[in-house]
Amino acid sequence: VRTGVSEVIYGAGKSAAQIAGIVDAMRRAGQERILITRMDERKAAELAEMGCSFAYHAEAHAGVVGELPEPDGNGEILVLTAGTSDIAVAEEAVLTARFLGNSVTCVNDAGVAGIHRLLRHGEEIARAQVIIAIAGMEGALPSVVGGLAACPVIAVPTSVGYGANLGGLTALLAMVNSCASGVSVVNIDNGFGAAYQASLINHLSGKR
Amino acid sequence: VRTGVSEVIYGAGKSAAQIAGIVDAMRRAGQERILITRMDERKAAELAEMGCSFAYHAEAHAGVVGELPEPDGNGEILVLTAGTSDIAVAEEAVLTARFLGNSVTCVNDAGVAGIHRLLRHGEEIARAQVIIAIAGMEGALPSVVGGLAACPVIAVPTSVGYGANLGGLTALLAMVNSCASGVSVVNIDNGFGAAYQASLINHLSGKR
Amino acid sequence: VRTGVSEVIYGAGKSAAQIAGIVDAMRRAGQERILITRMDERKAAELAEMGCSFAYHAEAHAGVVGELPEPDGNGEILVLTAGTSDIAVAEEAVLTARFLGNSVTCVNDAGVAGIHRLLRHGEEIARAQVIIAIAGMEGALPSVVGGLAACPVIAVPTSVGYGANLGGLTALLAMVNSCASGVSVVNIDNGFGAAYQASLINHLSGKR
Amino acid sequence: VRTGVSEVIYGAGKSAAQIAGIVDAMRRAGQERILITRMDERKAAELAEMGCSFAYHAEAHAGVVGELPEPDGNGEILVLTAGTSDIAVAEEAVLTARFLGNSVTCVNDAGVAGIHRLLRHGEEIARAQVIIAIAGMEGALPSVVGGLAACPVIAVPTSVGYGANLGGLTALLAMVNSCASGVSVVNIDNGFGAAYQASLINHLSGKR
Amino acid sequence: VRTGVSEVIYGAGKSAAQIAGIVDAMRRAGQERILITRMDERKAAELAEMGCSFAYHAEAHAGVVGELPEPDGNGEILVLTAGTSDIAVAEEAVLTARFLGNSVTCVNDAGVAGIHRLLRHGEEIARAQVIIAIAGMEGALPSVVGGLAACPVIAVPTSVGYGANLGGLTALLAMVNSCASGVSVVNIDNGFGAAYQASLINHLSGKR
Amino acid sequence: VRTGVSEVIYGAGKSAAQIAGIVDAMRRAGQERILITRMDERKAAELAEMGCSFAYHAEAHAGVVGELPEPDGNGEILVLTAGTSDIAVAEEAVLTARFLGNSVTCVNDAGVAGIHRLLRHGEEIARAQVIIAIAGMEGALPSVVGGLAACPVIAVPTSVGYGANLGGLTALLAMVNSCASGVSVVNIDNGFGAAYQASLINHLSGKR
Amino acid sequence: VRTGVSEVIYGAGKSAAQIAGIVDAMRRAGQERILITRMDERKAAELAEMGCSFAYHAEAHAGVVGELPEPDGNGEILVLTAGTSDIAVAEEAVLTARFLGNSVTCVNDAGVAGIHRLLRHGEEIARAQVIIAIAGMEGALPSVVGGLAACPVIAVPTSVGYGANLGGLTALLAMVNSCASGVSVVNIDNGFGAAYQASLINHLSGKR
Amino acid sequence: VRTGVSEVIYGAGKSAAQIAGIVDAMRRAGQERILITRMDERKAAELAEMGCSFAYHAEAHAGVVGELPEPDGNGEILVLTAGTSDIAVAEEAVLTARFLGNSVTCVNDAGVAGIHRLLRHGEEIARAQVIIAIAGMEGALPSVVGGLAACPVIAVPTSVGYGANLGGLTALLAMVNSCASGVSVVNIDNGFGAAYQASLINHLSGKR
Ligand SMILES: Nc1ncnc2c1ncn2[C@@H]1O[C@H](COP(=O)(O)O)[C@@H](O)[C@H]1O
Ligand SMILES: Nc1ncnc2c1ncn2[C@@H]1O[C@H](COP(=O)(O)O)[C@@H](O)[C@H]1O
Ligand SMILES: Nc1ncnc2c1ncn2[C@@H]1O[C@H](COP(=O)(O)O)[C@@H](O)[C@H]1O
Ligand SMILES: Nc1ncnc2c1ncn2[C@@H]1O[C@H](COP(=O)(O)O)[C@@H](O)[C@H]1O
Ligand SMILES: [Mg+2]
Ligand SMILES: [Mg+2]
Ligand SMILES: [Mg+2]
Ligand SMILES: [Mg+2]
Ligand SMILES: [Mg+2]
Ligand SMILES: [Mg+2]
Ligand SMILES: [Mg+2]
Ligand SMILES: [Mg+2]
Repeated sequence: VRTGVSEVIYGAGKSAAQIAGIVDAMRRAGQERILITRMDERKAAELAEMGCSFAYHAEAHAGVVGELPEPDGNGEILVLTAGTSDIAVAEEAVLTARFLGNSVTCVNDAGVAGIHRLLRHGEEIARAQVIIAIAGMEGALPSVVGGLAACPVIAVPTSVGYGANLGGLTALLAMVNSCASGVSVVNIDNGFGAAYQASLINHLSGKR
Repeated sequence: VRTGVSEVIYGAGKSAAQIAGIVDAMRRAGQERILITRMDERKAAELAEMGCSFAYHAEAHAGVVGELPEPDGNGEILVLTAGTSDIAVAEEAVLTARFLGNSVTCVNDAGVAGIHRLLRHGEEIARAQVIIAIAGMEGALPSVVGGLAACPVIAVPTSVGYGANLGGLTALLAMVNSCASGVSVVNIDNGFGAAYQASLINHLSGKR
Repeated sequence: VRTGVSEVIYGAGKSAAQIAGIVDAMRRAGQERILITRMDERKAAELAEMGCSFAYHAEAHAGVVGELPEPDGNGEILVLTAGTSDIAVAEEAVLTARFLGNSVTCVNDAGVAGIHRLLRHGEEIARAQVIIAIAGMEGALPSVVGGLAACPVIAVPTSVGYGANLGGLTALLAMVNSCASGVSVVNIDNGFGAAYQASLINHLSGKR
Repeated sequence: VRTGVSEVIYGAGKSAAQIAGIVDAMRRAGQERILITRMDERKAAELAEMGCSFAYHAEAHAGVVGELPEPDGNGEILVLTAGTSDIAVAEEAVLTARFLGNSVTCVNDAGVAGIHRLLRHGEEIARAQVIIAIAGMEGALPSVVGGLAACPVIAVPTSVGYGANLGGLTALLAMVNSCASGVSVVNIDNGFGAAYQASLINHLSGKR
Repeated sequence: VRTGVSEVIYGAGKSAAQIAGIVDAMRRAGQERILITRMDERKAAELAEMGCSFAYHAEAHAGVVGELPEPDGNGEILVLTAGTSDIAVAEEAVLTARFLGNSVTCVNDAGVAGIHRLLRHGEEIARAQVIIAIAGMEGALPSVVGGLAACPVIAVPTSVGYGANLGGLTALLAMVNSCASGVSVVNIDNGFGAAYQASLINHLSGKR
Repeated sequence: VRTGVSEVIYGAGKSAAQIAGIVDAMRRAGQERILITRMDERKAAELAEMGCSFAYHAEAHAGVVGELPEPDGNGEILVLTAGTSDIAVAEEAVLTARFLGNSVTCVNDAGVAGIHRLLRHGEEIARAQVIIAIAGMEGALPSVVGGLAACPVIAVPTSVGYGANLGGLTALLAMVNSCASGVSVVNIDNGFGAAYQASLINHLSGKR
Repeated sequence: VRTGVSEVIYGAGKSAAQIAGIVDAMRRAGQERILITRMDERKAAELAEMGCSFAYHAEAHAGVVGELPEPDGNGEILVLTAGTSDIAVAEEAVLTARFLGNSVTCVNDAGVAGIHRLLRHGEEIARAQVIIAIAGMEGALPSVVGGLAACPVIAVPTSVGYGANLGGLTALLAMVNSCASGVSVVNIDNGFGAAYQASLINHLSGKR
Repeated sequence: VRTGVSEVIYGAGKSAAQIAGIVDAMRRAGQERILITRMDERKAAELAEMGCSFAYHAEAHAGVVGELPEPDGNGEILVLTAGTSDIAVAEEAVLTARFLGNSVTCVNDAGVAGIHRLLRHGEEIARAQVIIAIAGMEGALPSVVGGLAACPVIAVPTSVGYGANLGGLTALLAMVNSCASGVSVVNIDNGFGAAYQASLINHLSGKR
């Protein structure tokens, strides 16, 4: 059974040495593929110097031990972002989804203030098995996407913005109030969590 | 000079008798046209029984003493609402704008979860001198409209919704964070305030 | 295509007469099956007196015009509630899910303070295609369920509780912070929204 | 058509190299005049070293590629600030307005606790086509100005203050509640957004 | 020693019978003058029917047993309100101050959006020993008054307003952030508390 | 007339050079005594190096140009603090009060969790003309002091504490809700503001 | 084993009929003693009319089926309240504690603004095995009591107050920040929960 | 009498020199055993260099002067943590409890998302005299533990998490709303406070 969680290390608040120790233990326990999230460049460099072998994905702030798997999900996960500043969260989602065996398409800068840029992607939206919609500031993207899509939409509020964005809380509250049906929400900046649930959905067996 | 404010009575928290008194005083001072906002059906009936002569606009929860003026603004004000539940606020805005001498177009139920319904109104959006965009829940409408319109957009958050809508605060915070440029915001359910500012804008002299 | 949304009337803030009008229009447009949510007993009685024919589901505060369909989803939706006070939200979720063509199992009173009552339902949890976990107060249920289940969990915070429950906001914030992976969240008391997304997930095609 | 938005780069969270890249692309696309907001002195120096040619406006934390245009608006924009600490926000507003083709007058330190300093500027207030009122702490300035002015007032709350100013949220909430009519509000510290809307208003065609 | 507090009954949440009992006990203990605050008309009528003898002040929602005393303070207390809706709070302040032996002047409707109405009262402001400034909505009055007055200003936020007034919290936060020196703040709608402190100040001995 | 405000520079957010400039201008305008608040040790050193002559009070984070005046108030100001961590705020209050011509007594570490330490100071409390009560965390001190004192109490919430102290907001809200009469409140950490109002009270003329 | 919870019915939100059903089931299961909390007078009357036999405690808003037990705890529980308005919460705590087999002393109106009234109860404080300190408004009582007592203090914030008491949240936050050691906190108005934990503490075995 | 508080120094916001001074004074007053909390490694090193002799406990961020005492409590305190990131708070609790004479068992990483890891510790839970349950994020652990345990549970919310964890406030609110009986709560990250109260409970005399 693919459970995913046991393959992931949450890197924030852990030293490179601690991460190295966990990776070692996991590998000894037979884990071939490990995802390390929330690890900045400096910590990644330290970890590499300790002899830990992994690929660092700078935009996702994450490292991968072992090879990414062949996608084996039912369909495709579409990751949509509202603005270029949301890309770090999007990359965390994309990498996590790939790590968990999903085929992923990513469309950046599809913010609602330029609705025609979003409408150009109708085909990707129609094709997706599940959509991850990422937005900071007023968090309006999932509402528009939820109206266009027939599949489930997982909304990720981001801390992008300033002032009354309240560090992402404004976007989170907005998304939870989405007037579109079929939208559910995860924590602020939680690209990992959105991808994890999207992967679960994308790996469900069909008609039983 | 048209200042508007001296012609308006805010009816909430005033008794019918108090309103009647103010109307009387205003008329004696020469005011021919008076707008009474936030007055429910029952209070309007009481006021009528006291011999005060006015037209009651039930959906706007407002009364008008005297005739509505001929529009004398520069162009047209467009009032857009996200959902049918926002209509009371929209009607307050529409009536206020008419009362202040504006030509108004109103499009209801143009919520962002059905974006094509909104896109059908491209012509009205292009024609407007100023737009009032009204929405509850996640308050996403002004962001989409702001991206489509070349004119100023005044956003009105409404208390429509439940739970994490926080009585309209979620929509207000979202609108203040709008990723679209050219959007400013008034208080929750404040259709009057939005129309008042829209009217000021619509009556500005052109090139001086 | 089953879109669901066009078959649903949100009854809150609409009069019986308004609902009757919408039902009529929908039926004339060929809609045979209609769900009316957030309609209390008194409004349902008024609607019935107007000659509208529907079945009223008192615990769900909802009415159904026409017959509920045969389930045609991939698997089963499991609805779990933490306490008896959450049942109204659970019943809204159950009825909505059934209305949208899903087979539903409902387990009430599986709160985390009596963890063994929850653990007794391991089989239902393992069998579910998607789980709706409903809880007020501290909103802990989805975290425990998320750890037990291999399928996606949709969490519904409820307004059940008092004082520092902040009308359900505490449960919502807690659920968004769930330490379990595979959990996403909808608005406070939004049994409809959870069931709608669960139904989308349960009707996804398998491997394409 | 002057849309403005496509001429502006939001510099916060972008590296000098990224900004240089965007400037290059814009220039190649024919854009002669570019505004770069939220760029601190250090980043501006880096950008200059990369051979990008622009004028840096230190107080506005902004850079301008190309020449500022001749004003072509209908009238004058008046920028009023409550205290010297709000000047950074005011300068962002002034520069943005000039960049967008407006004639601007700026009056600093017209806080309400010294009301006579404000009253001295009655002439500027009467002459303005639109006013931008900027204030931190209790955010009272727009209310007083709104009462004095016959034109629209755009209020900008600032994060100036400490303790219960809540990073500007207190001023924002206060401004949204303004007892003066004709006041609308933008995000905390958003001098750019206020100027953008003011410019839209100042460039509206007159009677059509 | 005049302590005041032992002469006052806070009527909210007490039945007429409970109030009657406390009045009786106080009178038997020799108290000749008693103030009963937060008592609505209905409760006052019940209390009167029980044979309790007192004068009811409807606008202040308060009753006075015994005679109001001759003023014996050092100077005059000035009570200023921003709008007519704040009058109930103002009347509570005025009656409390009179009850505690102060000479009081009250100026209503001196809101900051009509600054010239406030400026007309320069003489009263200059004459006052202490000022109570009462305002709802954005709570700006104390800041303007604080700048005009040389004496201490006690600010009372009121719950007047709607939406983002947050039941008076917005005004309270604004007042605490006042840019004027010499302003301190009491609880929302707490006319009693402001008058109590004003009376303490007005009864301080001079140079010792 | 002593107005105080024009003698004070708020040092936060101003560079040493800016402060030096303001001091120079003030002195040229005849001001002999100047208080500079919120100036840390480093900025004070820079200011001194620029040739500005002043005494630095490290604990108060403030500098004084010229001599402190002889006290000329009516009585004594008592400054009470709950814990040693509140001393910086207390020292700002003490120095400001002295600067404004008041005789000040300061009692530190009189927190309510050791009530007998506070009760030992009954004499100082009885003697005071006005009391400044400073406390962080739960902000209980002003309530106890307000019950013991017959004079006005000005409460200063501080940002001392962690977690649910919300940066001082908890103490501020608690103080505004004080069950003691005669207590009013200033902004978080605003020792200056409390002392300024206390000085106004302490300099009021007696019976007129 | 005494577990308590299975003997208690939370009456809020349950109909008299539902309560009667639960009582019946419990009695059939052998439960002789049942506590029904949060039941108002009207519901109690309905329940009695249904033939359910119980004693109603009006001040505690609670009913008891069967006899209260003989106290069998280690020592005494002391319940302290700050003001008479907190008595309903205190009575819920007292009755719950008695129901669970504790000897209880209750002291009302020991608020911190009259500290000497509290200090008079030094003996009861010294004698108590555990103290429940109940307060609304600023919630200061537990801090003072925590300093006086050597035993554990359980703090109960109440919703008593208005304005910035935020429905009890202010008191809750204050209590959680108590500067006294040995204080822990339960939910707003949760007299039951405090008594339940106090009873657990009072029934702990001594040295094992 | 063991009072504990006089033996403890809260190191945050104190310099090494200040701490050294307090330690000296305490020792001269006869205190042999002193706990210094919230002291980071650097400050500890400085303190050691000043000649102060103490053992530093790095994980607890605390130092102990003198020897830890032999446990003399009634039973055992069990410290449970939800995740490895909560260990710093747990270690503060463990060390404080030991310092105050308690025997302590500590179980880390017993989070509710892996409920079986928690259930493995049934014996420790049954044996405990009092339990300290520590959790960040959604703060669900105390509810599950409260249901399993027959003894009092003291809940400690931690600031672990991000986004909508609101720095620990989400966990605090959740814990205060716990559906389990027998749970009370201390401040965010307050391992010391929880251990202090647990120690009080664990040292209570039995039947008197
Ligand atoms: N970026 C992330 N945000 C939220 N949760 C994460 C993230 N990355 C990993 N996790 C979760 O954290 C768990 C590992 O936590 P830990 O044992 O502290 O390394 C994983 O199994 C995931 O459930
Ligand atoms: N209980 C509910 N909570 C949230 N949304 C609902 C609920 N019931 C229906 N809806 C949504 O409201 C739409 C109908 O809204 P309306 O057109 O106002 O009746 C449906 O299509 C659903 O998307
Ligand atoms: N200071 C500012 N505050 C808010 N929005 C801004 C600011 N400066 C620029 N913008 C907006 O950001 C857009 C550019 O964003 P970007 O594509 O991320 O550079 C501009 O077109 C403006 O709409
Ligand atoms: N520590 C302080 N906190 C709040 N206000 C202060 C403080 N120090 C000075 N002020 C006020 O700030 C004014 C000077 O502000 P500025 O002109 O910016 O230097 C003074 O007149 C005081 O009213
Ligand atoms: Mg959809
Ligand atoms: Mg636009
Ligand atoms: Mg799972
Ligand atoms: Mg105006
Ligand atoms: Mg003044
Ligand atoms: Mg007093
Ligand atoms: Mg104690
Ligand atoms: Mg238990």
